[in-house]
Amino acid sequence: MAAQRKISERTVERISRYRRLLESIHATSDNPFIYSHEIASLCGLTAAQVRRDLMTIGFSGSSARGYEVAELLRSASSFLGFSHERRMALVGIGYLGRALLDYFVDRNPLFKLCAAFDADPGKVDRVIHGVRCYPVTQLKTVLATHQVSTGIITVPADAAQNIAWELVEAGVTGILNFAPVQIRVPANVFIENLDLTSALEKVAYFAGNFSDKERTKK
Amino acid sequence: MAAQRKISERTVERISRYRRLLESIHATSDNPFIYSHEIASLCGLTAAQVRRDLMTIGFSGSSARGYEVAELLRSASSFLGFSHERRMALVGIGYLGRALLDYFVDRNPLFKLCAAFDADPGKVDRVIHGVRCYPVTQLKTVLATHQVSTGIITVPADAAQNIAWELVEAGVTGILNFAPVQIRVPANVFIENLDLTSALEKVAYFAGNFSDKERTKK
Repeated sequence: MAAQRKISERTVERISRYRRLLESIHATSDNPFIYSHEIASLCGLTAAQVRRDLMTIGFSGSSARGYEVAELLRSASSFLGFSHERRMALVGIGYLGRALLDYFVDRNPLFKLCAAFDADPGKVDRVIHGVRCYPVTQLKTVLATHQVSTGIITVPADAAQNIAWELVEAGVTGILNFAPVQIRVPANVFIENLDLTSALEKVAYFAGNFSDKERTKK
Repeated sequence: MAAQRKISERTVERISRYRRLLESIHATSDNPFIYSHEIASLCGLTAAQVRRDLMTIGFSGSSARGYEVAELLRSASSFLGFSHERRMALVGIGYLGRALLDYFVDRNPLFKLCAAFDADPGKVDRVIHGVRCYPVTQLKTVLATHQVSTGIITVPADAAQNIAWELVEAGVTGILNFAPVQIRVPANVFIENLDLTSALEKVAYFAGNFSDKERTKK
């Protein structure tokens, strides 16, 4: 899949972070300019990394007074495809699914959460955090109607692969998967597995090793 | 910080995934052996990558009949530090915080979620998903009592840095941060920023580019 993409996943993640930083600076600061080392410091990166990333979105080298915040913000937004609306849907209305509906629903006005789905009849035919909830049996029809391109999976691990196939058959080309299982998709579909358990186990691993080190020092 | 660690973050994440896979296989399969290529296929990785990672936890090369599942599971658990309990706390009892309490509370018996905190008096002095909720003013006392080493931050962006300092002062050496902001911690503290917005924007970016490609082909 990597060969199909010229831009790395990490670069896109960083540009997403720069964009939100620039948006916040644009709204609150009187200074219309910013240096790459200022962005770097606010993002915990090196200035060289920031300059490389900004070249990706069309800025080759900062002038003596820095980059223009408004122009950089426009370019980052345009790079991320924020010129047109993206329709999204979530499958799995448990605690995590509901929290993500709340988290994502107004975060980006161009990301429209059109629908949520669940297999449990008790969880559907209602509106949660502004998002209409449907039975999962209606997934294909509803996704086709709303022209959904992006799916979020928050079902249990054993249901996730089947849901992914259904999303792909319904025309979804990008999936953010929270189910703690490796999901297979066709090569023309992008999948991001966000494994919360691995993230916490990693933090615990390094937390433990750091504190062990502290203890040996004493 | 990287110089302090011999093991990469990605390696620890993968070993966390192998461990859960092995646990599931150990519980459900009659075959006591597994080949590296089988693990690789189930995790969406190459067999060479799996063998390199397993060398990290003390296995140099798979024999003709493969690795012994039970032994591999024990080694992965031991590597991840699952021989002793880790005490954890969460700060920020909003929708996401509550969902994560539910998600993490019984996921790993050695990860003990001891406490949750919030600045809103209406959200504390109760038990949510089995976890006791305290006013954030009691953070230091409660964390000291329970010897908490790992913190999870789910407060709004503008409160996250202060909460991180308080966690560190209370002895926390590892933080999983969900607030969409770059948090600074001392060099002896490990921080993982899990930026849900970047993750979704990345998926939307590649989903859009894949479908554009599909469209041009037609």
